[in-house]
Amino acid sequence: MRKEENDLLTQTDAKTPMGELFRRYWLPALTADELPGPDCPPVRLPLLGEQLVAFRDSAGRVGILDAACSHRQASLYFGRPEKGGIRCGYHGWKFDVKGRCVDIPSEPAASGRFGDQISLRAYPTLEQSGVIWVYMGPLEHQPSPPEYEWAQLPPSHVFVTRRLQECNYLQTMEGGLDSSHLSILHRWTLAYDSVIGSHMDSRIVDIIGADPNPFYEVQETPAGLLLGARRNAGAGDYYWRITQFIAPCFNLVAPTGASTLNAQAWVPLDDENCWGWAINYNLDRPLTTEERDAMKVGGGLHVDFVPGTHMGRANKSNDYLIDRIAQRECKTFTGVMGIAMQDAAVQESQGRIADRTLEHLVNSDNGIIAARRMLIQSTQKMAAGELLPSIDPASHHCRAASLIVPQENLTDVPVEVLQSAWVA
Amino acid sequence: MRKEENDLLTQTDAKTPMGELFRRYWLPALTADELPGPDCPPVRLPLLGEQLVAFRDSAGRVGILDAACSHRQASLYFGRPEKGGIRCGYHGWKFDVKGRCVDIPSEPAASGRFGDQISLRAYPTLEQSGVIWVYMGPLEHQPSPPEYEWAQLPPSHVFVTRRLQECNYLQTMEGGLDSSHLSILHRWTLAYDSVIGSHMDSRIVDIIGADPNPFYEVQETPAGLLLGARRNAGAGDYYWRITQFIAPCFNLVAPTGASTLNAQAWVPLDDENCWGWAINYNLDRPLTTEERDAMKVGGGLHVDFVPGTHMGRANKSNDYLIDRIAQRECKTFTGVMGIAMQDAAVQESQGRIADRTLEHLVNSDNGIIAARRMLIQSTQKMAAGELLPSIDPASHHCRAASLIVPQENLTDVPVEVLQSAWVA
Amino acid sequence: MRKEENDLLTQTDAKTPMGELFRRYWLPALTADELPGPDCPPVRLPLLGEQLVAFRDSAGRVGILDAACSHRQASLYFGRPEKGGIRCGYHGWKFDVKGRCVDIPSEPAASGRFGDQISLRAYPTLEQSGVIWVYMGPLEHQPSPPEYEWAQLPPSHVFVTRRLQECNYLQTMEGGLDSSHLSILHRWTLAYDSVIGSHMDSRIVDIIGADPNPFYEVQETPAGLLLGARRNAGAGDYYWRITQFIAPCFNLVAPTGASTLNAQAWVPLDDENCWGWAINYNLDRPLTTEERDAMKVGGGLHVDFVPGTHMGRANKSNDYLIDRIAQRECKTFTGVMGIAMQDAAVQESQGRIADRTLEHLVNSDNGIIAARRMLIQSTQKMAAGELLPSIDPASHHCRAASLIVPQENLTDVPVEVLQSAWVA
Repeated sequence: MRKEENDLLTQTDAKTPMGELFRRYWLPALTADELPGPDCPPVRLPLLGEQLVAFRDSAGRVGILDAACSHRQASLYFGRPEKGGIRCGYHGWKFDVKGRCVDIPSEPAASGRFGDQISLRAYPTLEQSGVIWVYMGPLEHQPSPPEYEWAQLPPSHVFVTRRLQECNYLQTMEGGLDSSHLSILHRWTLAYDSVIGSHMDSRIVDIIGADPNPFYEVQETPAGLLLGARRNAGAGDYYWRITQFIAPCFNLVAPTGASTLNAQAWVPLDDENCWGWAINYNLDRPLTTEERDAMKVGGGLHVDFVPGTHMGRANKSNDYLIDRIAQRECKTFTGVMGIAMQDAAVQESQGRIADRTLEHLVNSDNGIIAARRMLIQSTQKMAAGELLPSIDPASHHCRAASLIVPQENLTDVPVEVLQSAWVA
Repeated sequence: MRKEENDLLTQTDAKTPMGELFRRYWLPALTADELPGPDCPPVRLPLLGEQLVAFRDSAGRVGILDAACSHRQASLYFGRPEKGGIRCGYHGWKFDVKGRCVDIPSEPAASGRFGDQISLRAYPTLEQSGVIWVYMGPLEHQPSPPEYEWAQLPPSHVFVTRRLQECNYLQTMEGGLDSSHLSILHRWTLAYDSVIGSHMDSRIVDIIGADPNPFYEVQETPAGLLLGARRNAGAGDYYWRITQFIAPCFNLVAPTGASTLNAQAWVPLDDENCWGWAINYNLDRPLTTEERDAMKVGGGLHVDFVPGTHMGRANKSNDYLIDRIAQRECKTFTGVMGIAMQDAAVQESQGRIADRTLEHLVNSDNGIIAARRMLIQSTQKMAAGELLPSIDPASHHCRAASLIVPQENLTDVPVEVLQSAWVA
Repeated sequence: MRKEENDLLTQTDAKTPMGELFRRYWLPALTADELPGPDCPPVRLPLLGEQLVAFRDSAGRVGILDAACSHRQASLYFGRPEKGGIRCGYHGWKFDVKGRCVDIPSEPAASGRFGDQISLRAYPTLEQSGVIWVYMGPLEHQPSPPEYEWAQLPPSHVFVTRRLQECNYLQTMEGGLDSSHLSILHRWTLAYDSVIGSHMDSRIVDIIGADPNPFYEVQETPAGLLLGARRNAGAGDYYWRITQFIAPCFNLVAPTGASTLNAQAWVPLDDENCWGWAINYNLDRPLTTEERDAMKVGGGLHVDFVPGTHMGRANKSNDYLIDRIAQRECKTFTGVMGIAMQDAAVQESQGRIADRTLEHLVNSDNGIIAARRMLIQSTQKMAAGELLPSIDPASHHCRAASLIVPQENLTDVPVEVLQSAWVA
């Protein structure tokens, strides 16, 4: 990859092509329980290189605004949520969820006109199943609300966390589109993990461990890409895992046989950090207390957080609490505990922004190659005014899949998989 | 404000216009008790972008020198105060308070001439009422010693602290010239604060809380600016608060009715940090132990320090120990405890160097607008060789004031205030 | 010194002249016990601005490779040492100690050819007496293994540590070539130190303290420089201390009369940090447990480490735990405990890269002046293809020395010293 392409893919501040592309989509911003009720404390929210603040007003509406007060740039994070708005802690200017300045205590007569003249940049928000979404792009391009299956469920059926990852979003996302690392990085963890492993068919664990050389199939979809990995399952069978990539930064993980399904999203905080979203959900019933408790301490794709932060207890500053004994004894491949932290450790070790000019890609990288190409092409489509993948929320009606099928002469994704993977 | 003006105002390294202006004044450097006696340990002292070291020699004289030894730039902070000078810890070169090299152990014969040839930059100092002052400018422009009222008192009558604030001096200083934020940022704290609030007339607290829209009056003085804020006091009265701005970085705070008066100073450490000086004083009697104890734990404009540092226990790295319950329950407007830390929180949130090109200023900002203009004009006056405000120490003979006067047709600062504010 | 010379001397990344010079020598990389056995955990190893990883394979061979996997730049630090190589933790690419890619799990058929086509930069290593050495230069210039006397001893006779020093290597090394600071910086510590002081002749301590103005003699040697310092020893005697500088970054310290000898090396980690190596050794017998224990807690030229790190418990971030009482009471000159930390404190205080354009050098700096000149000249010799100092390992057969000789008309290094200092 040329440096120019790497820069294009990894830079998402305002006015950059990829930054503009991300601003065409609804993005997860924070979990609903971070703003638990009317007039609760505001939350700092850096997104796509912008410093924002999120709050919930007295009517329960969510505002996501520029953090810097129009008056003198004090952060509204120190502001006070009050009747229908947030009031800056310095001189008391008050803004509503639309960013309108609705009160200036020292200028009562002028407050009316200021509402129009002086307003903070405010972004549309919506709430779906425990997640607050934000749209940071031009209003004329605002898409309909997302329709990811997990986001249509009642909150009781879903468990969502947002973690800080200390590197660019792209290398984090690539981990989610790359089936082959399952057989290495997460190999033994799959069997041990309290969320995924405890319910995983041991045959599947064995298959994944035994065949680190899947055949890959990549197909374009209206949402993004269908990424198929076919492993030899022995006994005349194939094991297919179908991951969905949904532009610009979402995936649906092939099921593992566990009681919950997994989705992920990666949203740039700035070019050197991203928010890693992990979503577990059950289509049919509420998650149990046991399931939630296992996720809270780092099971599945979640992490065990330092309380009050989005940082895992294991993190870059403490070498991810690496346990070399566990590594030697084949408990974990790297010595790092937990699937999400294993991803974080190797991905952060690629550097703040991975230098893709040094790569040597192979067949198993076809998925990430296709996703990069799709993102680059999307910036061109955007410039040309063409329809972008995943803008139409109907395209979100897809599912990941995994299944064992008899080996025949098939090399393509079997029809059953394609059928089961799509929900009308 | 244009970017060029913001740069001019906020940059104070050597050779910058504002840096040269600051170097025309006596500035508070450290408290006298930081150098408690002859040959006490030296103190690191970054000021105006320069790395200095302060020490007290065997005769009790204070030296403020370039920290880097002339020989090989080891810091004199690790030096050893010894008979009439400080000796570098590396090779033992010794310098007196004038910066003269008075001994080179490895070159005894040459030491004499080195005193003249090799000398460290040394700045004149003086001591007044518990504060060590420094003059960092050209000797031909050195003004007479300052004559601030608080600096003429016996040390027993004064309590002084110096805290690190993690932003440019200007936005810190602007907080001290801005009467309107009293009604918001410090609103409920005024009544609770152990130094200010416990003795404050509850009528004054109510007036400040009830009228967030003062009428402002700004007048030039020989020292700087008289900043008047007139609030409606009900019952046919006005409440005037008169703050003195003394160039380039001092103020006298309008009295609150408490037993002590307040002054402040803001001295750049570098462009992204400043020293915030808080001075409490009583003109008539020594401060009591109770008063000092209350100030030591953060009462008034002081902060509760991490021992051995100039950093408050509440600080940027721990989100100022923000207490959202106290915010919700109207104990503090922002959730931050203590007047000085409330100022620090909102001012540091403006960024390391506030971007004033984004501001929307209003009437209540007249004081800071006038102070900025005076500083910019002073750099022009300096270039033209004209007299600068506050250079004549007689101009320091001013006082802040606050009083309640009957409402008549007055809109200007009442004569009583002007008279009471000036001491011949 | 001109800025260009300072840059030349202090910059050692690849492609810089001094970086290329350093890459012509065997350099100490890590202690053998950091890689205690076959397939032990790998070690991060930043050297000369390069990010490397060191590991020991199943056969006990040491590999020092680029840390970033050829595939997608994940760090091999998270890799898993396995049968004859290290396997990347992300996708399992495996490299042997020569850097050859010997397995790609997802590309079994291609693995063979990848070994030749895709290989990581790998550096030759060797092990001598508890130290693992690396050669990072062109293979055609690889010198024969080093023959320092201490590196030829059985490990039982040697104690070696590697500490992080937070400044450029050159100013650290200069401390080791500068006899005059002994009389100041380490003055009282020499008598107290548990390794050096407890066995030091009190007459020597007195001589060093009493004569801070040695006569200096510098002579070129095949290895580098012989640096002689002659002090007046009273009673008609001279006290000579002969330090050997061995290019590009080694010394042998003049004996102090203690039971062990001292050597040092300084290897750039990057331009703003270096590895400070301290070696104690006894030519005739194993070190005792008492001697090792004293070194482990910071005796001699060692430091008391934060466990699991190369950082001293006393370090820049905690002001080296400076004890001003000990300074005042003449226990230590600076208040910093321990010879190595005293060096670190003053050297780090010179700045990350000392600005040598500000220096005022004197006679006692002749040693460092000569060493700088030799390094600069060596880069010119290297460019001209001439023999460099210390490349021939026979040149390493030198010793430091110290002795008391009668004062006669001698000013040069006495013949006895020169004879005793050289081993055939």
